[in-house]
Amino acid sequence: MPKFEFEDLIKLEKYYKIALINKIAGLKSANLIGTKSNSGTSNLAIFNSVVHIGATPPLMGFILRPLTVDRHTYSNIKENGHFTINQVTTAIHQKAHQTSAKYDQGVSEFEECGLKEIYIDDFPVPFVVESNIQIGLSFQEEHLIAANNTRLMIGRIEKLILPDEVIKEDGDIDLVALDTAAIGGLDTYYAAKRIGRYGYARVKEAIKKLD
Amino acid sequence: MPKFEFEDLIKLEKYYKIALINKIAGLKSANLIGTKSNSGTSNLAIFNSVVHIGATPPLMGFILRPLTVDRHTYSNIKENGHFTINQVTTAIHQKAHQTSAKYDQGVSEFEECGLKEIYIDDFPVPFVVESNIQIGLSFQEEHLIAANNTRLMIGRIEKLILPDEVIKEDGDIDLVALDTAAIGGLDTYYAAKRIGRYGYARVKEAIKKLD
Repeated sequence: MPKFEFEDLIKLEKYYKIALINKIAGLKSANLIGTKSNSGTSNLAIFNSVVHIGATPPLMGFILRPLTVDRHTYSNIKENGHFTINQVTTAIHQKAHQTSAKYDQGVSEFEECGLKEIYIDDFPVPFVVESNIQIGLSFQEEHLIAANNTRLMIGRIEKLILPDEVIKEDGDIDLVALDTAAIGGLDTYYAAKRIGRYGYARVKEAIKKLD
Repeated sequence: MPKFEFEDLIKLEKYYKIALINKIAGLKSANLIGTKSNSGTSNLAIFNSVVHIGATPPLMGFILRPLTVDRHTYSNIKENGHFTINQVTTAIHQKAHQTSAKYDQGVSEFEECGLKEIYIDDFPVPFVVESNIQIGLSFQEEHLIAANNTRLMIGRIEKLILPDEVIKEDGDIDLVALDTAAIGGLDTYYAAKRIGRYGYARVKEAIKKLD
């Protein structure tokens, strides 16, 4: 078993280090974040860092890299106050990956990557038609991480759209039926094979498989 | 397609809401966070919110729920300054789920859930023997999220241990060979089926499948 100490890690070749460190967190959520600039250009970018923040009120967050280059997702959220989170399916994972190319401001990744945008009701930012879960959020707060100038961005869910047939009676969702993809690191995509769902764990009780 | 507005979401029945909102982020990383109190009790808890923060320096973070009940993971990190992140495999996913039961302070989830702890070198917090990726971190910073009193906790990677044979020449890691599990919501576990790895995306160039 190789063992890397902090001193070993920082000395690794740049791309080797990026590949290794990005992958050790495990399987990550795959989502497209949609935004819109005040000048009217929509933007779409893939993120592997979307996390659940809370259910009451409903909040989600994601990690945004340092603003050392132009980050349209960030500037658009600050201008517009809203963003959308759209789930990446295995069917669109290649188009979703293509959104990570460095398109200029004024160019829409929707068009360039072959994904359709849709405006729903009066929500000011477009959703991705091909995504099976579409979430519209209002920007709430940001936290600048001192250690490396990344940011945690947090939004409140204002609108949630997903297919009827995947929601079970108790609010559970079938992610396999939704064709949900996962990401390893920055470059590898996975489909999910369901193992099991378990009941709330209790001290001194055997774990209970629900289905 | 059902459409939930914010006002609909907050009125949902409590457990329905928790199930629904927790699952819409997609497939999430499955990790066991190990800590140790000053009084010497080790603690182990499953988290589905571990995120990559950066590679230079190597940083990882996770979301910690509000301190309305005793959170041993939090108090131990503040006491001890260190924690470990240990990857959940499909082989140990049931034991990992059991760590979410509310064990009292003074009780070690390692023993109660049938997972072996190991101390490596002089790192002050135990790792999980059964995990194929073991990461030792020093606590760096925390961010209190005003919207719901959760916290983003951030650590620097001081030690990284994983099997030789899964690291490719370019630093990439084979998560399927590692038996890495993913979590949907709080209760459903998945294995990964690899679809493909892609090159760095470039404007006006077709996406390139690496392997």
